[in-house]
Amino acid sequence: MDVGHIVLSEKPQLSLFETSPAPARKPPRRKPAKKKKAGGPLTAEEMGAQQRDISVAEFFTKNRHLLGFDNATKALLTTVKEAVDNSLDAAEEAGLLPEVTVEIRPLLATNGSRSGTNGANGDPNAPERFVVAVTDNGPGVVKAQIPKIFGKLLYGSKFHRLRQSRGQQGIGISAAGMYGQLTTGQPTRIVSRTGKGKPAHKFEILVNTQKNQPEIVTDEVVEWAYDHGTRVEIALEARYQRGSHSVDEYLRQCAVANPHATFIYRAPDGLETVFERGISIQPTSPKEIKPHPYGVELGVLMKMLKTTKATKLKAFLATDFSRVSPAVASEICDVAGLSQNAWVSRIARDEADRLYQAIPKVKLRKPPTDCLAPIGAEAIRAGLTKEFEPEFVHAVTRSPSVYRGNPFSIEVGVAFGGKLKADEAVKVIRFANRVPLLYQQSACAISKSVGSVPWRNYGVQHPKGGMPVGPLVVFVHFASVWVPFTSESKEAIAHYPEILKELRLCMQDCGRVVGRHIRRQKRLADAEKKRSYIEKYLPHIGIALQEILDLTDEQREDAFGKLVEILNRSRKP
Amino acid sequence: MDVGHIVLSEKPQLSLFETSPAPARKPPRRKPAKKKKAGGPLTAEEMGAQQRDISVAEFFTKNRHLLGFDNATKALLTTVKEAVDNSLDAAEEAGLLPEVTVEIRPLLATNGSRSGTNGANGDPNAPERFVVAVTDNGPGVVKAQIPKIFGKLLYGSKFHRLRQSRGQQGIGISAAGMYGQLTTGQPTRIVSRTGKGKPAHKFEILVNTQKNQPEIVTDEVVEWAYDHGTRVEIALEARYQRGSHSVDEYLRQCAVANPHATFIYRAPDGLETVFERGISIQPTSPKEIKPHPYGVELGVLMKMLKTTKATKLKAFLATDFSRVSPAVASEICDVAGLSQNAWVSRIARDEADRLYQAIPKVKLRKPPTDCLAPIGAEAIRAGLTKEFEPEFVHAVTRSPSVYRGNPFSIEVGVAFGGKLKADEAVKVIRFANRVPLLYQQSACAISKSVGSVPWRNYGVQHPKGGMPVGPLVVFVHFASVWVPFTSESKEAIAHYPEILKELRLCMQDCGRVVGRHIRRQKRLADAEKKRSYIEKYLPHIGIALQEILDLTDEQREDAFGKLVEILNRSRKP
Repeated sequence: MDVGHIVLSEKPQLSLFETSPAPARKPPRRKPAKKKKAGGPLTAEEMGAQQRDISVAEFFTKNRHLLGFDNATKALLTTVKEAVDNSLDAAEEAGLLPEVTVEIRPLLATNGSRSGTNGANGDPNAPERFVVAVTDNGPGVVKAQIPKIFGKLLYGSKFHRLRQSRGQQGIGISAAGMYGQLTTGQPTRIVSRTGKGKPAHKFEILVNTQKNQPEIVTDEVVEWAYDHGTRVEIALEARYQRGSHSVDEYLRQCAVANPHATFIYRAPDGLETVFERGISIQPTSPKEIKPHPYGVELGVLMKMLKTTKATKLKAFLATDFSRVSPAVASEICDVAGLSQNAWVSRIARDEADRLYQAIPKVKLRKPPTDCLAPIGAEAIRAGLTKEFEPEFVHAVTRSPSVYRGNPFSIEVGVAFGGKLKADEAVKVIRFANRVPLLYQQSACAISKSVGSVPWRNYGVQHPKGGMPVGPLVVFVHFASVWVPFTSESKEAIAHYPEILKELRLCMQDCGRVVGRHIRRQKRLADAEKKRSYIEKYLPHIGIALQEILDLTDEQREDAFGKLVEILNRSRKP
Repeated sequence: MDVGHIVLSEKPQLSLFETSPAPARKPPRRKPAKKKKAGGPLTAEEMGAQQRDISVAEFFTKNRHLLGFDNATKALLTTVKEAVDNSLDAAEEAGLLPEVTVEIRPLLATNGSRSGTNGANGDPNAPERFVVAVTDNGPGVVKAQIPKIFGKLLYGSKFHRLRQSRGQQGIGISAAGMYGQLTTGQPTRIVSRTGKGKPAHKFEILVNTQKNQPEIVTDEVVEWAYDHGTRVEIALEARYQRGSHSVDEYLRQCAVANPHATFIYRAPDGLETVFERGISIQPTSPKEIKPHPYGVELGVLMKMLKTTKATKLKAFLATDFSRVSPAVASEICDVAGLSQNAWVSRIARDEADRLYQAIPKVKLRKPPTDCLAPIGAEAIRAGLTKEFEPEFVHAVTRSPSVYRGNPFSIEVGVAFGGKLKADEAVKVIRFANRVPLLYQQSACAISKSVGSVPWRNYGVQHPKGGMPVGPLVVFVHFASVWVPFTSESKEAIAHYPEILKELRLCMQDCGRVVGRHIRRQKRLADAEKKRSYIEKYLPHIGIALQEILDLTDEQREDAFGKLVEILNRSRKP
């Protein structure tokens, strides 16, 4: 390695618009490599001829691990998760109480035997082929939209709006179908009906990956027992297991975070589990909002100026953002040194920049909270109590905050003691918009925040640089109009500073309360110990006093009673 | 939470093609939620009307953290990295020895003052605006391709081929420009010339995010001092720092992994650092290969059958895959029970499946190795020695293996002792296709493998479930025709089982050698201790013997000499 020699640059700083800088060093000549490579070097023209478009479906087929399909176990969970997310979102938007049925069964080959798979090494642990079928009682999908929703990536209704929902990318379910197609060659099968008396449409759809377009294999009207709803069936290579990363665990956690939904689960072994809804009230449906000015990037502001329906600057600010009243809009214009009546279409980049820099100087109210649907402290406490039977439970829902213009809200619940094990790392249960996150815990902002809280101050063991250790469960729900996941597979939340801060503050709120409980428990335990000493030794002292002072039994009892009283009084704070 | 009641399903398993399953439970009726939500529930038709396409540029603008732009410090490194990757790739393809100049300087506002930024809270640590300029002496880019390469996501020459290169997605540099545009509103500026006597083209390009298409702001011919090469300038919001995740560190590691390249670095403070190339020989350029049949998915096989130029099955297998000779192709056809002369266009899904299941049953040679360009054990040893001055160094390049049909090769180097600190976690240095990986260490397959190696067997401390501790550096290079990164920001390698296995085996190869060294050192240290005891105590024994036995000085010396001899002999093995 070259350690590098350091010289102070004598060149003046270039302005951005200087295009032809005199290089500090003589520009290097074409220096042919000594060894000609096999195949021969290419010219710029030859390289240019190789350039071409990459379809987003091709991209994600090659990078299927980005979508949560990196191994056969995870592929099964991801497929179930994408379908269930869609079912819950649709039911909520339609104002229906969701009932979702998840079935997983072996894929039967045409001759009726279990269908085998490749598995490069003839490995007995090689994945098998399964069919995942998810059926809901939701509003159904109109016929024209079925092929695109299930057969095209980056297509959907949730990306372009600011409203809390589980899906947001328009990738998930079509990607699951694409993975099924990749590993079994089979199309995705959909049945959907939008209401009683309307036909139930059945489609078989493949994704044309080169074009990122659906290919309709069959399209027919069928009999279907549901009045309204959607059923999606995907055949895929997968591995079924129970345990911490399983479909079973995912549905169990789903039921905790969605007490208004019923889940029916038929596992590959035929076992059926029903998670009945706990409440029959639809949670307040989150509203769609406009962006909050704090954190909106210059480029986004410029784009909004281009596409707004408003014609004057003040009107643009007051109508296209949330929490900007006409008075506040005037103030922003003033701080930016721009006229309130400036034509939006004539705002140049430099002026947009002044506007952008004026925004943080004006005090704005926090974003509206009705775009978010937190689970609620009470429901979290109930869930934790039922699940873990702890000796103490507490939960906090923090008021919303903003990152990059997006409102978000953190909820934290803690369960302590009881049946929880004292010598294990704290169990962290993560949710984003009511969806359980089971993978990539170490990459998640939630886990990072758990590690950064000063648990020792609250009486919980906490090895330096690690996770706290103790009989503690930390339940965290991140709710936002846009969840910044670290990958398209939506398994971990990205480390935005504003999010990390709110997470930490919310955990500290809970931590302090748990700390008080732990200290009180410790005090009580100490007192209990003392009491037991008193009860153990005082009678003997009584007898000794009787012997020494020659007391009657009555006097002894009297002295004993007084001693107990005095000692009990002394151990009260 | 509902614990769930379990019932054995009485229903027979459904065949995949049964579209109208009689549900085990009576299908739920439309059950209106008790509370009507504000804004009102939507019908399927209303939801359908909201569905729309999402452009991949919109997707990545909203998810910019996926591309490595989640914070201002990382944004600077990512921008430099994407530009440098492209420079090195182009020079290598053209058979040129690369010289890459990286400049970072504050963005000057039009009035000459440093340009400020937003920073929602008026925070003094808020990011500043910088210009990153990367200039190379590569082959240049032909005029027609400049706008698309720098102004369109998912466009490039490297995605559709199997050949080791740094870039592979066709996203990086246009995404960096898009981030610059988002945070400063400025276009990407490019100057490129493809040879002496040809014009140097200067472009200013914006990305139209709604369409994912370049918008050309200016397009002109300019004077430029370079005969051939490309210069790209991006103005962006960023934070500059030195240290472990810095541009400085990145370029230093780049120089280690690319000893044939010269890097010139001008930091924002005007300091210039030059990393001169250590060798003037272009590394053997990797060749493009065809996919290896092991690990190719059924869906990919079906797509290849559709797009092949071959007409007969045997010819298809023998020409479209690597390591499939005509004889092997015949064998695969036989195992699959298909005719060698079957028309490729008539192979149905079931037959393709038989082909797919036959492949792992036929023995194939490992994939060709000339598609990979490892750094080489010697260069790794030299780099580690220069950088860390250890007492012991070792490196291994493993022969290639395959994951999902892609050949890959692992190289591991270890440095032990010397100036390295004994009480810290082992330092892991990660590279993928010669590119240093500085972020997301804990999410990377490399780190996971380091943790899974039984270091204790090699005499290195290793806390359970953690990283080993000791005066040890582990250098790992993953080279492949396709690197499976965990996100588009290309910071960590995904956990494919085949990759984890090869990583572990290669580390164990190195670990055993280090272990021998550590044991030898320990033996030598023990012997040294014994020798020092002998030298310390024997003279006294000599004197004691002289007194007891009344020896002359000469006899004493003689006895002493013999004792030394006997003891020295006894401590040899």
